[in-house]
Amino acid sequence: MTTPIMPKSDAADLIVAARIRQGLTWATIADKIDAPLVWTVAALLGKHPVPADKATAVVEMLGLGEGVAESLRQQPTRTPDEAATSDPTIYRFYEALDVYGPALKELIHEEFGDGIMSAINFKVDISRRADPGGDRVVVTFDGKFLDYNW
Amino acid sequence: MTTPIMPKSDAADLIVAARIRQGLTWATIADKIDAPLVWTVAALLGKHPVPADKATAVVEMLGLGEGVAESLRQQPTRTPDEAATSDPTIYRFYEALDVYGPALKELIHEEFGDGIMSAINFKVDISRRADPGGDRVVVTFDGKFLDYNW
Amino acid sequence: MTTPIMPKSDAADLIVAARIRQGLTWATIADKIDAPLVWTVAALLGKHPVPADKATAVVEMLGLGEGVAESLRQQPTRTPDEAATSDPTIYRFYEALDVYGPALKELIHEEFGDGIMSAINFKVDISRRADPGGDRVVVTFDGKFLDYNW
Amino acid sequence: MTTPIMPKSDAADLIVAARIRQGLTWATIADKIDAPLVWTVAALLGKHPVPADKATAVVEMLGLGEGVAESLRQQPTRTPDEAATSDPTIYRFYEALDVYGPALKELIHEEFGDGIMSAINFKVDISRRADPGGDRVVVTFDGKFLDYNW
Amino acid sequence: MTTPIMPKSDAADLIVAARIRQGLTWATIADKIDAPLVWTVAALLGKHPVPADKATAVVEMLGLGEGVAESLRQQPTRTPDEAATSDPTIYRFYEALDVYGPALKELIHEEFGDGIMSAINFKVDISRRADPGGDRVVVTFDGKFLDYNW
Amino acid sequence: MTTPIMPKSDAADLIVAARIRQGLTWATIADKIDAPLVWTVAALLGKHPVPADKATAVVEMLGLGEGVAESLRQQPTRTPDEAATSDPTIYRFYEALDVYGPALKELIHEEFGDGIMSAINFKVDISRRADPGGDRVVVTFDGKFLDYNW
Amino acid sequence: MTTPIMPKSDAADLIVAARIRQGLTWATIADKIDAPLVWTVAALLGKHPVPADKATAVVEMLGLGEGVAESLRQQPTRTPDEAATSDPTIYRFYEALDVYGPALKELIHEEFGDGIMSAINFKVDISRRADPGGDRVVVTFDGKFLDYNW
Amino acid sequence: MTTPIMPKSDAADLIVAARIRQGLTWATIADKIDAPLVWTVAALLGKHPVPADKATAVVEMLGLGEGVAESLRQQPTRTPDEAATSDPTIYRFYEALDVYGPALKELIHEEFGDGIMSAINFKVDISRRADPGGDRVVVTFDGKFLDYNW
Amino acid sequence: MTTPIMPKSDAADLIVAARIRQGLTWATIADKIDAPLVWTVAALLGKHPVPADKATAVVEMLGLGEGVAESLRQQPTRTPDEAATSDPTIYRFYEALDVYGPALKELIHEEFGDGIMSAINFKVDISRRADPGGDRVVVTFDGKFLDYNW
Amino acid sequence: MTTPIMPKSDAADLIVAARIRQGLTWATIADKIDAPLVWTVAALLGKHPVPADKATAVVEMLGLGEGVAESLRQQPTRTPDEAATSDPTIYRFYEALDVYGPALKELIHEEFGDGIMSAINFKVDISRRADPGGDRVVVTFDGKFLDYNW
Repeated sequence: MTTPIMPKSDAADLIVAARIRQGLTWATIADKIDAPLVWTVAALLGKHPVPADKATAVVEMLGLGEGVAESLRQQPTRTPDEAATSDPTIYRFYEALDVYGPALKELIHEEFGDGIMSAINFKVDISRRADPGGDRVVVTFDGKFLDYNW
Repeated sequence: MTTPIMPKSDAADLIVAARIRQGLTWATIADKIDAPLVWTVAALLGKHPVPADKATAVVEMLGLGEGVAESLRQQPTRTPDEAATSDPTIYRFYEALDVYGPALKELIHEEFGDGIMSAINFKVDISRRADPGGDRVVVTFDGKFLDYNW
Repeated sequence: MTTPIMPKSDAADLIVAARIRQGLTWATIADKIDAPLVWTVAALLGKHPVPADKATAVVEMLGLGEGVAESLRQQPTRTPDEAATSDPTIYRFYEALDVYGPALKELIHEEFGDGIMSAINFKVDISRRADPGGDRVVVTFDGKFLDYNW
Repeated sequence: MTTPIMPKSDAADLIVAARIRQGLTWATIADKIDAPLVWTVAALLGKHPVPADKATAVVEMLGLGEGVAESLRQQPTRTPDEAATSDPTIYRFYEALDVYGPALKELIHEEFGDGIMSAINFKVDISRRADPGGDRVVVTFDGKFLDYNW
Repeated sequence: MTTPIMPKSDAADLIVAARIRQGLTWATIADKIDAPLVWTVAALLGKHPVPADKATAVVEMLGLGEGVAESLRQQPTRTPDEAATSDPTIYRFYEALDVYGPALKELIHEEFGDGIMSAINFKVDISRRADPGGDRVVVTFDGKFLDYNW
Repeated sequence: MTTPIMPKSDAADLIVAARIRQGLTWATIADKIDAPLVWTVAALLGKHPVPADKATAVVEMLGLGEGVAESLRQQPTRTPDEAATSDPTIYRFYEALDVYGPALKELIHEEFGDGIMSAINFKVDISRRADPGGDRVVVTFDGKFLDYNW
Repeated sequence: MTTPIMPKSDAADLIVAARIRQGLTWATIADKIDAPLVWTVAALLGKHPVPADKATAVVEMLGLGEGVAESLRQQPTRTPDEAATSDPTIYRFYEALDVYGPALKELIHEEFGDGIMSAINFKVDISRRADPGGDRVVVTFDGKFLDYNW
Repeated sequence: MTTPIMPKSDAADLIVAARIRQGLTWATIADKIDAPLVWTVAALLGKHPVPADKATAVVEMLGLGEGVAESLRQQPTRTPDEAATSDPTIYRFYEALDVYGPALKELIHEEFGDGIMSAINFKVDISRRADPGGDRVVVTFDGKFLDYNW
Repeated sequence: MTTPIMPKSDAADLIVAARIRQGLTWATIADKIDAPLVWTVAALLGKHPVPADKATAVVEMLGLGEGVAESLRQQPTRTPDEAATSDPTIYRFYEALDVYGPALKELIHEEFGDGIMSAINFKVDISRRADPGGDRVVVTFDGKFLDYNW
Repeated sequence: MTTPIMPKSDAADLIVAARIRQGLTWATIADKIDAPLVWTVAALLGKHPVPADKATAVVEMLGLGEGVAESLRQQPTRTPDEAATSDPTIYRFYEALDVYGPALKELIHEEFGDGIMSAINFKVDISRRADPGGDRVVVTFDGKFLDYNW
């Protein structure tokens, strides 16, 4: 019988449940599939299509079925969860953009001219930096500059 | 006669006009007042109160009046310009958060536990990284981790 | 027993699943039913009623049931999926309109007078154009001009 | 005395008024400054910075002042006029995207893989195509494909 | 066992399915129950309570159950389907009001004084008018004038 | 000196003021310029460009200046006044569409097939119909049917 | 087995169904439980917690189960149904407030000083008043005045 | 010279200022023009056209000019001030409708059948009722019942 | 000549400017007029009517005119500045309510029964509490409990 | 079989049902798990991760299963229930912020300088204060001051 492909949000729920019950970190999973850490989490939460071999490796590692792997391989429609943007951990990033966004725009144009930082040819990294005043979260956005080019 | 303090948006418009007409970069101004680059731009656009000596230095450098300096010294109400969030140069940052925000949340919790990256004890930097495939915009968010602490 | 007609979104989910599992491209399906490519995809996603013979051909090709064909034949209510408009692949088109929409309006009026490009007597095509700087997506909107005609 | 730079919307209003009073078409102006037609209109309406020589040519042609030229040269913040999106001439483009956007997304991914049509490395053209059933507006969006590239 | 009354949207889905499968037009149904055409469609879609005899006649004609008739008889809460307002066929009516609404208001006040056209003591009719330039949809709103009457 | 063209809303305010002070009805003005009544009101309120001879006739009749006539001649951007949609006289029309819109859609498709009533090749009329139960406002929408035609 | 408490909206649906099938008016039910009419309807629709004896009396009268009574006894979260506010019967009340709200505010302040009419120490009544011009709906809001009292 | 008619909000501001400076109550003004109290306040705040003799009486009483009287005589567009709806004195009325609106709808239908309380053939009154537990604000809405009448 | 009363936001701007230029704290002003601190700031920012003697004391202290005092004495319409709610200093309070609001509701009902904390018979205080881990902001809301009392 | 983790809202519904059926107060539960009262309610409603021993104690006390305990231990995404913010008991807190938020901001800056009250290093308490004029709800927000610290 034909059935729809499992929605990526369902696949993500199963991955999260298995990950927690097996006591695995995201870092362990990312290592296992040899992929960058933030990319791995984003992809398993449904934001990127996962190559077939990596999708298989994930479901085997977590004891999940082929339906999950099939879901992971699909092209996503990347829709933000508007409600989640007010979660305090996520909101602080939006707040930082509300405060510093226009300044970043000024400095991109000063340094590069008219254009944007690509969010497609783009990567993100997160790390911990020890600091005597309290450790710090360091998040780096790294995107190719694209100039307005008619 | 009593007059209201010049709104920070008016002060910003005058600073931007003088900066452009005199051919000064933001970097030059930041150097002159010995302050970080992104902080300087954000503050002169109205997002931070500017210490009195730096406010004076800015208006002298740009040939502006005391009214501008007075405005710069004030405590701001930090209100985002909602319309500007759809400017393509700024929007790409929001889009990146829409795609990667939940993943960053997962990884902050994995590494630090329940809490947030502060957007107050916080700094941002921007730089250019040469790349044969096209130079890249690199933006770093660096905030103190704050744990939920009742 | 009377049952409601299968919603078009459910029919679309089944078509997408079968298409992917059988490794068929949209182009193959469009060829099979002898219909334009963008029209075919839009119609199978639920945006146009599908003529009975084409609906039957699609479900036979994909091994789906008469319930899917019945759904495809119905007159749709064409409602945009607001969440999907922020998917980056779709959003870029909206962004282009945000930037160029008023210019297109000026030029339609200059060339044709007061009126609109019809979105009903209308077709869309998409193609790939090779380019040494990177291949390009070329999308053409082609609609009959309708003048304001009391 | 220091004054703010003329807002781009004011500059646009003056250009539109002069253009109409002098009976000049947008095409004439675009020819005069040797720039593409849609780009020219968009830029003079405030959506692109105008190179200094072209800005000077425009204000001379239209008998406007240096303040307008200065405004034209500035980097814009590209904010859509939300109200204008419901103007019928502009709305039909949004409606077309509401109906065909998901289909275009499917076909971009089928042909190019995971990625987007750039709206920055991008151009638009508009033309009239004679048709016995009524002449047609033909608008072509042409943007470089950018693949999701970590 | 007590069960809730079938929601009017479910009743409408069943009526629509039965109507289509039996190849009946709305006009046939309206004739059968001896009611105005637009009223009939609106009522069966859930916008008006249906008198018991007419409700019975409809479910008998369409082979549906008493649960549908019971649902039809209920007093509705008349809530617009906001998503449907952007369906192009429906949207054109809203667009016409956006353009002509203030003019209609001026003319109602000129002719009748301060007041409104009732939307309760009100009827709508739709007809086709042949026209060599293409047949026309003619929709008539006919409501009692109510003056502001303290 | 170059000045912007008078906004259509300002022109409308002047026309309304002159009309009232001179005690002229809209019907008188429409007769004078030999144009349909609803079209005339809509156009003078800023929703349609007014042909030069009619614009001149209006300003002469009302003792207004050439600036008003120039404004009337311009191509409008037709933006609804969202606040006005909740004026009770205008709101009743929207309410009627909220209640009867889906029924009108069903009946257009039943009679004409897949397509729309044009709001461009379109006219509106309003009249008073005497009725012993209270006189009635009768508004007729009359638009060309356009079928979805790829 | 532990189960959640029945949502108040489900309890309300069952009460409404039983009330209609047994041909009981709201007034009969209010009499039976010896409670004010509007309070009774509001409470049974889920807007007030119902005292245990009254909850029992209602479910016995209507032949419903203890699950309904348990639901009725709960403290509600009073959330408006935003969609229902546009139901014409309800909307007219909101429209009246849109028109008369500021006048009521002026008169409360004139008569009572700075403060509000409580919506908590508050009751509503509705009645029919015969009138030769058509019977009238009379709704009375009666709330304790609370002055701003630091 | 032609000038626009003074906006009703400006007229209201002048009336309010004169009323306060002269120490007049709304009740005094209403008496003076022999009109109901709530109607008077609403009308002078811009919600109703004021008959010429009453408009003249008001401006004479308050020492205002003919421009104010002219403004008062105009037909208003009745637009709610959305911001004011969250003023606590006004908000309590909206909150009461959020809680009791559906109950009022049930009871109107039970008593009168399908229809509405008119907000046009309608009056409002406000009074103070002494109460040992604190005096009460009593507001009465009194509108003609209109049945859905095709 | 009659003039409108100075808007409270203008009065607030003048008070803020004078306060800053004279180097006065809010606490000093509150002491001077013998009023609670938070009440004083709220009232001078326009949220409460200020008794005549206190209004006079404030304008004398700050060297402002009678127009400011007249404005302060007026009854305000208390409209939130929606944009300011996203200022980080203010937003944290809203965020705390988003997280703890439902818990506060549960506990109010557990302790007091069905009802609310009044925001009218209400006071707020703010203080600093020294803490070795960093001083703390302590804000106390203190409102009379009002039970739902028909 | 792999199953998703029970959503926190489902766990909360079960806890609330068991708490009510067993006649336990929130205070009893908080005592039992030796945790602050407001924290306990917030955490069991899904706003905080619950330590394993406390989660186990709660489910044992209430006779619930391990699935509930597992859900309680998870890291939440803290999303406000927008609809609940208009519940009158919760709304009064938002209204208080709408009125006093800007004053609190002024006073935080006066006392502490530029910065915020943390909502993360933060606690809330609620208590009852006897008062002859009616007992009072006292809610205390207590958060660490964080200064803007680049």
